[in-house]
Amino acid sequence: MGVLRMGHASLRVMDIDAAVRHYEDVLGLKTTMRDKNGNVYLKCWDEWDKYSLILTPSDQAGLNHVAYKVEKEEDLDVLQKRIEEYGISTEMLPEGSLPSTGRMLKFLLPSGHEMRLYATKEYVGTEVGTVNPDPWPDGLKGAGVHWLDHCLLMCELNPEKGINHVADNTKFLQEVLDFFLVEQIVVGPEGSVKAATWLARTSTPHDIAFVGGPRMGLHHIAFFLDSWEDLLKAADVMGKHRTKIDAGPTRHGVTRGATIYFFDPSGNRNETFAGLGYLAQPDRPVTTWTEDKLWSGIFYHTGEAVPSFTDVYT
Amino acid sequence: MGVLRMGHASLRVMDIDAAVRHYEDVLGLKTTMRDKNGNVYLKCWDEWDKYSLILTPSDQAGLNHVAYKVEKEEDLDVLQKRIEEYGISTEMLPEGSLPSTGRMLKFLLPSGHEMRLYATKEYVGTEVGTVNPDPWPDGLKGAGVHWLDHCLLMCELNPEKGINHVADNTKFLQEVLDFFLVEQIVVGPEGSVKAATWLARTSTPHDIAFVGGPRMGLHHIAFFLDSWEDLLKAADVMGKHRTKIDAGPTRHGVTRGATIYFFDPSGNRNETFAGLGYLAQPDRPVTTWTEDKLWSGIFYHTGEAVPSFTDVYT
Amino acid sequence: MGVLRMGHASLRVMDIDAAVRHYEDVLGLKTTMRDKNGNVYLKCWDEWDKYSLILTPSDQAGLNHVAYKVEKEEDLDVLQKRIEEYGISTEMLPEGSLPSTGRMLKFLLPSGHEMRLYATKEYVGTEVGTVNPDPWPDGLKGAGVHWLDHCLLMCELNPEKGINHVADNTKFLQEVLDFFLVEQIVVGPEGSVKAATWLARTSTPHDIAFVGGPRMGLHHIAFFLDSWEDLLKAADVMGKHRTKIDAGPTRHGVTRGATIYFFDPSGNRNETFAGLGYLAQPDRPVTTWTEDKLWSGIFYHTGEAVPSFTDVYT
Amino acid sequence: MGVLRMGHASLRVMDIDAAVRHYEDVLGLKTTMRDKNGNVYLKCWDEWDKYSLILTPSDQAGLNHVAYKVEKEEDLDVLQKRIEEYGISTEMLPEGSLPSTGRMLKFLLPSGHEMRLYATKEYVGTEVGTVNPDPWPDGLKGAGVHWLDHCLLMCELNPEKGINHVADNTKFLQEVLDFFLVEQIVVGPEGSVKAATWLARTSTPHDIAFVGGPRMGLHHIAFFLDSWEDLLKAADVMGKHRTKIDAGPTRHGVTRGATIYFFDPSGNRNETFAGLGYLAQPDRPVTTWTEDKLWSGIFYHTGEAVPSFTDVYT
Repeated sequence: MGVLRMGHASLRVMDIDAAVRHYEDVLGLKTTMRDKNGNVYLKCWDEWDKYSLILTPSDQAGLNHVAYKVEKEEDLDVLQKRIEEYGISTEMLPEGSLPSTGRMLKFLLPSGHEMRLYATKEYVGTEVGTVNPDPWPDGLKGAGVHWLDHCLLMCELNPEKGINHVADNTKFLQEVLDFFLVEQIVVGPEGSVKAATWLARTSTPHDIAFVGGPRMGLHHIAFFLDSWEDLLKAADVMGKHRTKIDAGPTRHGVTRGATIYFFDPSGNRNETFAGLGYLAQPDRPVTTWTEDKLWSGIFYHTGEAVPSFTDVYT
Repeated sequence: MGVLRMGHASLRVMDIDAAVRHYEDVLGLKTTMRDKNGNVYLKCWDEWDKYSLILTPSDQAGLNHVAYKVEKEEDLDVLQKRIEEYGISTEMLPEGSLPSTGRMLKFLLPSGHEMRLYATKEYVGTEVGTVNPDPWPDGLKGAGVHWLDHCLLMCELNPEKGINHVADNTKFLQEVLDFFLVEQIVVGPEGSVKAATWLARTSTPHDIAFVGGPRMGLHHIAFFLDSWEDLLKAADVMGKHRTKIDAGPTRHGVTRGATIYFFDPSGNRNETFAGLGYLAQPDRPVTTWTEDKLWSGIFYHTGEAVPSFTDVYT
Repeated sequence: MGVLRMGHASLRVMDIDAAVRHYEDVLGLKTTMRDKNGNVYLKCWDEWDKYSLILTPSDQAGLNHVAYKVEKEEDLDVLQKRIEEYGISTEMLPEGSLPSTGRMLKFLLPSGHEMRLYATKEYVGTEVGTVNPDPWPDGLKGAGVHWLDHCLLMCELNPEKGINHVADNTKFLQEVLDFFLVEQIVVGPEGSVKAATWLARTSTPHDIAFVGGPRMGLHHIAFFLDSWEDLLKAADVMGKHRTKIDAGPTRHGVTRGATIYFFDPSGNRNETFAGLGYLAQPDRPVTTWTEDKLWSGIFYHTGEAVPSFTDVYT
Repeated sequence: MGVLRMGHASLRVMDIDAAVRHYEDVLGLKTTMRDKNGNVYLKCWDEWDKYSLILTPSDQAGLNHVAYKVEKEEDLDVLQKRIEEYGISTEMLPEGSLPSTGRMLKFLLPSGHEMRLYATKEYVGTEVGTVNPDPWPDGLKGAGVHWLDHCLLMCELNPEKGINHVADNTKFLQEVLDFFLVEQIVVGPEGSVKAATWLARTSTPHDIAFVGGPRMGLHHIAFFLDSWEDLLKAADVMGKHRTKIDAGPTRHGVTRGATIYFFDPSGNRNETFAGLGYLAQPDRPVTTWTEDKLWSGIFYHTGEAVPSFTDVYT
């Protein structure tokens, strides 16, 4: 059946202790493991696999790779063949390349971002368990995010040079990985240029997104919260912790979701995202935002340009 | 890819005008069509296909059939073969058997309920459109439900006679229609009896559910609301309209979702259901509710038996 | 300036440890003091005086007295004179009659309930402090109620015998203690019988309420929560703790407020009450609920009689 | 008993039609009256007096006067005497100086702003009535604000010249009009300079506020909404209407309240303010924000300076 959802992100951080404090105390993840290289593995309370975030000590912030979980081991073989046939070279990393994780199919998206697919990760269970569970666990810290929800990758977009990695990634994900297109921003003559796209495999509004910019990079990784009310609590927590907030709480036009953008101590942008009544489906007509309403798509309430949205990323 | 989601329900109602007023004024659906036999077709504002509810004049309340949408016309043929091979006879109704709808694959679930699958229904669009849409349309009436979300079918359960149509339906949906089991209530010696199950195709907590009882019937059809806050508004609307409320606003243990149960004027039970932070996935471990906590599964706050839940249905 | 607000309630409980666990773990109060007689004193996080609840070990549940705080010590003298002139005898208890509390003016309401007024109680501060406070403290337990908000006293109402202690109390509070009437339920011929009243000194919808019944008693003491969302959390907490819920979450017609009624382990009824956009003012016209809509006044959503509301109290 | 609450604001607007559309369609007020001079009078749905907002055609935006309602006609005479004794000259405008309004006591605050007090205004009733009212009326437009809640007046603050009209106004309101101080921002050596104050007569967190700046003016008038959820709806409405948003939705540190700042078409700043669980009381200790946390007081989530907050006003 192929790709299920985003499985984890591997992020570079410059101060590992500050980063762990941020993801634990502000977002509410828990450390489930550390390896001898100093990498820290964390998960959200409502996730059942061992980790959804790897923090790697580095002298520069940014994304190492994003990983998506597929349903079955066989899917990896099927998808490897399809990806290779599409003209993208792949590498099957053996089981244990990452701890507690099965073999991983590694390749570069047309935009140059490293993506990995895997089918197996050690099961540790959510914090409420599987027998007569409470709706939420006691002792949650910070915002208490449910799960790693999606990432937004900045892709090189230079129509004059004929470069549009947003379009390239989108085509690849649709044709090879069976994502469906949910929303898009189109610009340029007659809206001919896909400047941003949101794609899904689940019925949440997006499992991955691409936005065009001057260079590739990570725009943000997003963690799921349930409601607008949960975003108030999250913002309160950020206020208490002096977290650097970029924008929000506010609502996106694209996906209708509610959002706070903020930064981890190394400058990697995070989002707490709350889906607000949206059922993504393969047969749902694609929603298109036009250039004149581009900023209403990004920030629905003000509809105004926020330069940092496109300029600041890792 | 098979089944996408619940597509429509066909309900029998005894006073068609009262029923239309209920679904329009209390729930916020709009009538999109009436046929010469007096059937009324309605849709929710956030749905794009022509209707999700058919009201049929009758002298008795109840369910005619439930219909699920599949992704492609070819899926109907593939599934027909699989269903027949499973030992259930099917009938392919020609296009136009229902207005604005393609051919439908009709069959009976092991429980005796009529289910239909279809791939094609006339597209009319959501009320916010597909270009630079607002997050919600002006002029919504009543509770303003987003979409028809799921149904719960009462199935005969008589362990002494060896009858468990909950288990039978569940097996059929898992093996033939590729639903995955999300939650279950088990009773009896060592929890050997599946007394209720919740299954999904989307990543919402359930697209269909079965509960065991003395006879087959319809427990409820559920419409989606986004939040606990929306349920307050819905309950206020019901208060204004003197809608007969059965239970709620409250929270289910099963699915964590928030709920109001109420009745249409003919006595068909409705639900407004708000998913509260739950990602159903094929690899999410099945959540099990045991007999001693059964009622916490149904109504988490009180955990107390509500006889009407299992006794009253159409 | 006279009466400010409800200051504390003194409750009889049959199992003091179970009671403390209830008020601490479910409601979120903290014990601030115990005395040598085994009485336990507690306060809510957003209160600044030393306690708002006294739990007294007893072999029977019920209310010892309710106490309201007045602005100044002189108010006690002025009010003593007015109360005596009204024909009600009073007693001025000396400072220290209750620990950390100044002198108290003690008297019986026309209904027979003991009321006390005081101007001085030891200041201990809210949990967020007075300098650059956070909006809420870390480490809150349970529902995290803000403050003791009001009480509802059951008063003897027997029109045939010419007894209406609801009316008597209301008149006394209006004429002597300068409360203003906010809402009322009237029954009987031409609505001539005040069956229930809600009165205020603050601009919240009520600081005290009276409901007619067969005998005097305590209907409930209510703790304030901010929102409908906070009530969901409170109900979830009650689900976790198997607290006996009487009704709710739902909305009152009277006051528009949202509510959960539930019982402490001794059977004293509690309420978590969330005011939903209501400004009580002396010049706001009194809202009247008529006999035919009485139950919509009590429980707006269903509008249906709930016998335990009037029959079960301590 | 003196001052009850804010009664109305009289605002100058440059395009009366655009202003009426703004206050009706975005905020949800209704026009209740127009006079021959082109002034438009509006009220909120939950107010019972004839108007709370007067829009006056002008070639410049700004505030004409703010008016507070007192409880009784006699209060006007008592307060006139006290104000005069304080050294501020007053004028008693005769009944009918403003339509549907009794005599008004007019004077200038130490800051130079015109304030009026009145006891009588024509009663028209809330939109839900006083007999068996619904919790909210059908057909609300826009944000559906409940009532005019408070105003914030910019006052000249120039410590070097010995000018502090924040302190002067505060002293006057406390000593003469019996407001109590709820919160304050103090700056300068040892926090000796009151840079901003929030004062109340009701038990809401503020009925008036003063902030120091280079010149006197109107910072904003605020309308009450019930909840954080209502602010999302309000912001959505502003997005639909392309209302110019200044800040928010966010939370103030001061008062804990949730807020959106935005501008009417003439540039007068509005606020939709939602009180979040705060009981102002004369004996509640004053909350103080220090200079280093000043911006956390203004905007709790970011704690960052927003120059327009102090620089842009009418």
